[in-house]
Amino acid sequence: MKNIKAEVITIGDEILFGQITDTNTQFISYELSKIGIKVVRKSSVGDEEQEILQILTEASLRADVIILTGGLGPTKDDITKTTIAKFFGVGLHTHQPTLEMVSDFFIKRGREMLEVNYRQADVPQNCEVLLNKVGTAPGMWFEVDGKIYVSLPGVPYEMKYLIQEYVLNKLKTYFKTPFISHRMIHTVGMGESFLAEKIVDWENNLPSHIKLAYLPSLGIVKLRLTATGKDGEHINNELTNQEEKLVQLIQPYIFGYGEGEKLESAIGVLLTKQSLTLATAESCTGGYLAHLITSIPGSSVYYKGSVIAYSNEIKSQELGVSTTILKEKGAVSKETVKAMAEGVRLKLGTDIGIATSGIAGPDGGTTEKPVGTVWIAYADENKTVAKKFLFGSLRENNIKLAAIYALNLIRLNKRV
Amino acid sequence: MKNIKAEVITIGDEILFGQITDTNTQFISYELSKIGIKVVRKSSVGDEEQEILQILTEASLRADVIILTGGLGPTKDDITKTTIAKFFGVGLHTHQPTLEMVSDFFIKRGREMLEVNYRQADVPQNCEVLLNKVGTAPGMWFEVDGKIYVSLPGVPYEMKYLIQEYVLNKLKTYFKTPFISHRMIHTVGMGESFLAEKIVDWENNLPSHIKLAYLPSLGIVKLRLTATGKDGEHINNELTNQEEKLVQLIQPYIFGYGEGEKLESAIGVLLTKQSLTLATAESCTGGYLAHLITSIPGSSVYYKGSVIAYSNEIKSQELGVSTTILKEKGAVSKETVKAMAEGVRLKLGTDIGIATSGIAGPDGGTTEKPVGTVWIAYADENKTVAKKFLFGSLRENNIKLAAIYALNLIRLNKRV
Repeated sequence: MKNIKAEVITIGDEILFGQITDTNTQFISYELSKIGIKVVRKSSVGDEEQEILQILTEASLRADVIILTGGLGPTKDDITKTTIAKFFGVGLHTHQPTLEMVSDFFIKRGREMLEVNYRQADVPQNCEVLLNKVGTAPGMWFEVDGKIYVSLPGVPYEMKYLIQEYVLNKLKTYFKTPFISHRMIHTVGMGESFLAEKIVDWENNLPSHIKLAYLPSLGIVKLRLTATGKDGEHINNELTNQEEKLVQLIQPYIFGYGEGEKLESAIGVLLTKQSLTLATAESCTGGYLAHLITSIPGSSVYYKGSVIAYSNEIKSQELGVSTTILKEKGAVSKETVKAMAEGVRLKLGTDIGIATSGIAGPDGGTTEKPVGTVWIAYADENKTVAKKFLFGSLRENNIKLAAIYALNLIRLNKRV
Repeated sequence: MKNIKAEVITIGDEILFGQITDTNTQFISYELSKIGIKVVRKSSVGDEEQEILQILTEASLRADVIILTGGLGPTKDDITKTTIAKFFGVGLHTHQPTLEMVSDFFIKRGREMLEVNYRQADVPQNCEVLLNKVGTAPGMWFEVDGKIYVSLPGVPYEMKYLIQEYVLNKLKTYFKTPFISHRMIHTVGMGESFLAEKIVDWENNLPSHIKLAYLPSLGIVKLRLTATGKDGEHINNELTNQEEKLVQLIQPYIFGYGEGEKLESAIGVLLTKQSLTLATAESCTGGYLAHLITSIPGSSVYYKGSVIAYSNEIKSQELGVSTTILKEKGAVSKETVKAMAEGVRLKLGTDIGIATSGIAGPDGGTTEKPVGTVWIAYADENKTVAKKFLFGSLRENNIKLAAIYALNLIRLNKRV
């Protein structure tokens, strides 16, 4: 079986000059890797005809699949379409269904269509249009000399729509790619290298057509298992088998499965299933914990609110932390954080209270309590527990890690 | 004067396969553009010798400056250094100052140095080492046939350190780049196209050696003025002159100046200068407003805390919003949000209270109050004001925009 190679090309001065972050190529590479197509190079070029022609020529010598994003807007800077037509030596013609969609878009908004907007429905004669139902720039698919060229708009959600709706399936069909299946396991509370140590024997015994990838981010490590083969059912059974073995080795750290899982969603599901309500009391996380929780649609079902007690007065006045504790043990202490968790639980009348207090930095550290010291507490009707963490020196990371470990404390105490 | 062209190349499978977001190339392109060096192409290749040799050969034909990041770690995947040596046809030798720094790093941490760690001090014979004082992988600078090659570690803060500490100045000296000066103006509360309309006459009259760039992000538009010339003093005077004119046209929307400014820092400075304290009451922003405020080190001086009132009970119980108002006007209303701002101000005993209440989506919208409807209120000892916004359909954006406009409401009411 031949290895299918791809190149991803972004077109646009704003990426080239560092004015925006390019997240498109990461998405495309990741999705291609999932169907067994390997990206061998990524490039960005400006909105210049010569640059685009050159990269197209180079890429067509190296890759089987060439995916371009950007440069399809209505302004005069956007020259991708005419340049591709030139590359293939064809003219442009109007694509009627796209023209109707674009007209519709303008009619609905009561806006007048300009000449440049009509031009959005023009496409190179040799392309198959991928109808863009979430925007006005059509996606384009070209099959030339056994290679596939795809041109997509640069707007991330339009690009994602076209990739998921058309491109991946069409590539699978065209290249008769082998059956590829994935399993994603999400873990929290253990670093990549420790996790690797725990599963080293299992990993070494994996058959060669099953691969494991570690995808670490702050506080979280995702494990992706990928199996490749001809027989879908067989592959899936094997994968299920291997996944079960893996899960047994690291069960306590797993918070979820599947592609789009997040810790804050998993906590939401856990609370909803058990009909539990939650309140938070935040000092060092300063609202970030509440933000994670409320970033999930529908979180108002289980989340009642938070008291962000950035000052000691608020800790005692609003959360009932005794001034003696604050004076004798300090704001960053087991006693304070426990009192905060219990206080907010009683105050907001919820089943669970979570509290954070720590030294996010860069200032405020002492020898005894250096920057990165964080206490997190969990309180419910039966118990109150607190845990101390020592994170690093970066304020932003300390805040984010504290919020993740606070969510994890709910999971550790309430998982079934 | 010759145009200096640059290419930026990232090396590493984890970027190529979409497992991490590449932010390095954006940073490098942006910094190069500030000293008048134009990035004409960006590329990513894997940790493969042939790929790296090929891209180096190609880039050396197109660009005057080639900057590589990644592939300098101690593991066997990291082959950038030996590949560059091969590209230049030279051997490696040990760089003594780097070896001492690496040894020091290990001694301080009480860890044993392995063979691979000694290798970190090896560099191609033709390079000038850029001493990396924040990590163990040295930066490398090569001058070959009138072109500059720079190899930097992929760890973002190490790369940034080396760029700012050495690379930019060395490039300016080597290429005798013209004098370039910048002014950055940060605005909030007006979209890019409206802003452009307000300053169109001024912009059209800019001399050709002064350029204006719009750098929009969610709720914020940064304007960057860049002047190029031989006489630094003259350029700076001209820029000051043009900046003054620009500022007069858009004064009410400006919250700050300079490269690293943020709205949340500007608010912090404003409150600190006036010795004012702040409390927030958040419904739809769910903690994100507090998070922005507390992301600034030292914010505890002016920020006392927040009540996140996600449920109506909390709004009335903790913030004193009357149940009649909640029932008759609803949680997303002028009356509720005003009562929240006043309530939190009194409760936490601060000079200013800010409140948000809205429908972040995706659910909860009605014909009268569609998703994206947000009320924001400001209260101080003299007055309470509220403002209604209609943002879009994306939950994440609605939350972030509401927090930005809430900060802006402080600015509008308290600027001097």
